[in-house]
Amino acid sequence: MSRPSGRKQDNHKISRELFVLTYGALVAQLCKDYEKDEDVNTCLDRMGYDIGIRLIEDFLARSAVKKCRSYSETAEMIAQVAFKMYLGVTPSVSCCSAAGNEFSLILDQNPLVDFVEELPAERASLCYCNLLCGVIRGALEMVHLAAEVTFLQDKLKGDAVTEIGIIFLKKTEEKKHKRNK
Amino acid sequence: MSRPSGRKQDNHKISRELFVLTYGALVAQLCKDYEKDEDVNTCLDRMGYDIGIRLIEDFLARSAVKKCRSYSETAEMIAQVAFKMYLGVTPSVSCCSAAGNEFSLILDQNPLVDFVEELPAERASLCYCNLLCGVIRGALEMVHLAAEVTFLQDKLKGDAVTEIGIIFLKKTEEKKHKRNK
Repeated sequence: MSRPSGRKQDNHKISRELFVLTYGALVAQLCKDYEKDEDVNTCLDRMGYDIGIRLIEDFLARSAVKKCRSYSETAEMIAQVAFKMYLGVTPSVSCCSAAGNEFSLILDQNPLVDFVEELPAERASLCYCNLLCGVIRGALEMVHLAAEVTFLQDKLKGDAVTEIGIIFLKKTEEKKHKRNK
Repeated sequence: MSRPSGRKQDNHKISRELFVLTYGALVAQLCKDYEKDEDVNTCLDRMGYDIGIRLIEDFLARSAVKKCRSYSETAEMIAQVAFKMYLGVTPSVSCCSAAGNEFSLILDQNPLVDFVEELPAERASLCYCNLLCGVIRGALEMVHLAAEVTFLQDKLKGDAVTEIGIIFLKKTEEKKHKRNK
């Protein structure tokens, strides 16, 4: 992997439309490759995971953010810094559990579907943007945070908003330790 | 296709790293799908073409450029405006034919290969960035310019620079017309 450092600090900002259309080509190719929506979703999530574990380095280098001290701070960081940086939008964040480990990212606007009118009837179970879940999961894992990331609502499927759910998984060891006290 | 106009004029700029990694996932998937490099290259070119014929509208709307009056102006526009807008780099342009219809775009830096170290030995004929050729060809076709677009050199293959060749094809009708004069 070539590193940004050591080469001229050029402008890394680009218009997102080429990315959005290229992503569409990727999803279309996977839909050719796999008959079942579930298999496409799994593949997108896995690809996203592989991207996330590499993208995190770029994110930490470029954002120069400090270590998050809570799940809540981490969720806000994903929404306000990471989404803004890589997709040009800022989802709103809400906490959905008393335990404080479940969050929703609400996207009023989802640029990844800019050129998509609607899903074909035979692809009703497709999570078109599932790559994003994998990216978030992979990136979090690299900063030692295990999480489940899934689409809870999707405008493409007729929902009012697009909502990504993040559940931070408490470490088993940590739980055991607490229980033994 | 949803139109940029009519919705809030938000910031369309994003960091390119997510795009670059997603493009890598697309190429990797095609390498799984097709055994022959030539088939991957053709597929990338075709996908690029489909993207180009859609992206041109976005380009014209966003760049607000005037109509080009020569092939030379068109080549400069691709390099200085389109590449800058969608990839964040500006290739240098040189004209390679006395007839004035062949151009080279020279990329000292190719952001699309930022995370690629080298092509695997068994993929020696892969044109990793061939999508770009298709995008240029498709976009040009939509402004009534037929062109052949191919990679002439590629740093990934050990060449000193990455070079995209554009040959503008003179219209058959135009030629006939001139001949009849």
